[in-house]
Amino acid sequence: MPESSINSAPSYREAGVDLATADRIKRRLRSIVEPTFNDGVVTEIGGFAGGYDLSSNPDLGSILVASADGVGTKVLVAQLADRHDTVGEDLVNHCVDDLLAAGARPLFFLDYIAAGRLNSEIVISIVSGFARGCASNSIPLLGGETAEMPDLYPAGKYDLAGFAVGSMVAQWETSENRVQIGDVILGLGSTGLHTNGYSLARQIVFDTAGQRPDDIVPWAKTSWADELLAVHRSYLKSVGPLLGNKALHAAAHITGGGFATNLQRVLPPGSAAAIDRSAWTPGSLFDYLANAGNIDRDEMYRVFNMGIGFCLIVSAEHASEIAERCRASDQPALFIGEVVAGEGLQWV
Amino acid sequence: MPESSINSAPSYREAGVDLATADRIKRRLRSIVEPTFNDGVVTEIGGFAGGYDLSSNPDLGSILVASADGVGTKVLVAQLADRHDTVGEDLVNHCVDDLLAAGARPLFFLDYIAAGRLNSEIVISIVSGFARGCASNSIPLLGGETAEMPDLYPAGKYDLAGFAVGSMVAQWETSENRVQIGDVILGLGSTGLHTNGYSLARQIVFDTAGQRPDDIVPWAKTSWADELLAVHRSYLKSVGPLLGNKALHAAAHITGGGFATNLQRVLPPGSAAAIDRSAWTPGSLFDYLANAGNIDRDEMYRVFNMGIGFCLIVSAEHASEIAERCRASDQPALFIGEVVAGEGLQWV
Repeated sequence: MPESSINSAPSYREAGVDLATADRIKRRLRSIVEPTFNDGVVTEIGGFAGGYDLSSNPDLGSILVASADGVGTKVLVAQLADRHDTVGEDLVNHCVDDLLAAGARPLFFLDYIAAGRLNSEIVISIVSGFARGCASNSIPLLGGETAEMPDLYPAGKYDLAGFAVGSMVAQWETSENRVQIGDVILGLGSTGLHTNGYSLARQIVFDTAGQRPDDIVPWAKTSWADELLAVHRSYLKSVGPLLGNKALHAAAHITGGGFATNLQRVLPPGSAAAIDRSAWTPGSLFDYLANAGNIDRDEMYRVFNMGIGFCLIVSAEHASEIAERCRASDQPALFIGEVVAGEGLQWV
Repeated sequence: MPESSINSAPSYREAGVDLATADRIKRRLRSIVEPTFNDGVVTEIGGFAGGYDLSSNPDLGSILVASADGVGTKVLVAQLADRHDTVGEDLVNHCVDDLLAAGARPLFFLDYIAAGRLNSEIVISIVSGFARGCASNSIPLLGGETAEMPDLYPAGKYDLAGFAVGSMVAQWETSENRVQIGDVILGLGSTGLHTNGYSLARQIVFDTAGQRPDDIVPWAKTSWADELLAVHRSYLKSVGPLLGNKALHAAAHITGGGFATNLQRVLPPGSAAAIDRSAWTPGSLFDYLANAGNIDRDEMYRVFNMGIGFCLIVSAEHASEIAERCRASDQPALFIGEVVAGEGLQWV
């Protein structure tokens, strides 16, 4: 039976899944995905799973680190704005930052796209974003799954999940160089909301304020789509080379739950993060959301990253040197706080 | 700021994401997930990513294999039947079988659950299924993400994605023991539809035939929910020990696209799979779907696994010995065909 006969399966198509479309898309996707492949990849696209040879990178330790994530309702902003080529990059960078916060450098990434009726141009846009994110983090898009489920997702709607595996460089939990009282907390700037707080931000911007994606924001010449789809920053360039440096005691990716939730994940019992909010200016987007949504300041810091997407907890002695290395990587680090005796998060 | 203050974030909750509920669920999930942990796991639940030490298993090679997948609209059957503790197990087994078909044994699994308003009992049921699947395959549920997105998913609806990483044992693509003309194709029985063809099956059973999940099927004392939610079989028990056996030249997981698509993935150019459909009886569920849906025979074999969930391509000389080893693992293998000169799939 020639392969093309699969493509004429009439009843399956009637039931909502178009295998011919899926097949055509797969061929175009191959041309987008293959350029991300590096020496580690030992399988071709189209197999049952993707293979990656760890021996292609002789410096690796034995501990793998893996993270699964989504981009929350940022996908709904992409769908509202009809701009689909950035959320994949968001997701790669989000996963990479989770690996960095666990002390690991990324090795490869896989994606899952679930959608209603398959619009091939949109799928290709989404995968282009994944591929761009993988390329900029120098990792292959090793595999993935695209599922058509018209009875679960309305036409034009989709959700994304991503999965990254890395190699642990800094095993902070069992290291002698743990977080201690007196350590300095450095903050690395975010590009905007990254991938958190979109349920509240969408409500404020699109429902309360009645803005549309193409409308221009009040404080700049960019559109709401530009602001709200700004790509989640990968901190690989600055943080990757610091992993293994004994002055770096822990790292936190500022995602859902903000500073409180994410700094607490890495603080040992008896220690608290004292953060000086006057050390930086969150930026106009956050000011707008607080005012238009009538959200109080503490709440803003619980929901959003407030301009700081990643924190490094470093020895006080070497903090300036670490900050200088970040600046040299074009990702400047601000002194935003310190580790003090106590529990949780303190604003100072 | 005490951690509990995060839980009282009022405006975030009003926007549709209830952090207090998410937090309470996380604690219960810990008690379900931790029992799956084995010696390889080096991180605790709640970090930014999960860590797995490859050196805990000294026999591993250097090649990792990774697979991302979903269970398609089998999730909608679970939702219709209000039975949520099996689809997670389906997904683990599906991913494990993809790894086996790529010549790898599984090391760990991560999940992604996306839902509308978070019903904690349903989430806990779903994760119980993931944990059962991980436990039965002897792998840890190393991490995961549960996302509440009420604007994307209606109340009570959810989707699942899974990611598994394994270690390659049989690198068939570059091996000398490749598939050759004259090889025997052994088929391992499925438990039912596994995770494919649910768009068509749901249409026939629930729309055309007007059945409800609790109705009893015509050929047995089980319900439609029992039949359609039968758990995807993991072939780890039989196929895992065979990986590395030189008589095993390739393996195929019979998923979307049926025999044609999945056998073709592993056949070298110039070779075809000749399958004798009289070698086994697909079973009453498949007979019912063909009759009630008025689906022709070839179409049935393109959409469904037709009772064979996994195929082994083995040397003719050792086929009986391999089949005997499968039988001894309680997963009997049937002689269903052979590799012949040609292209694609031939029914004989």
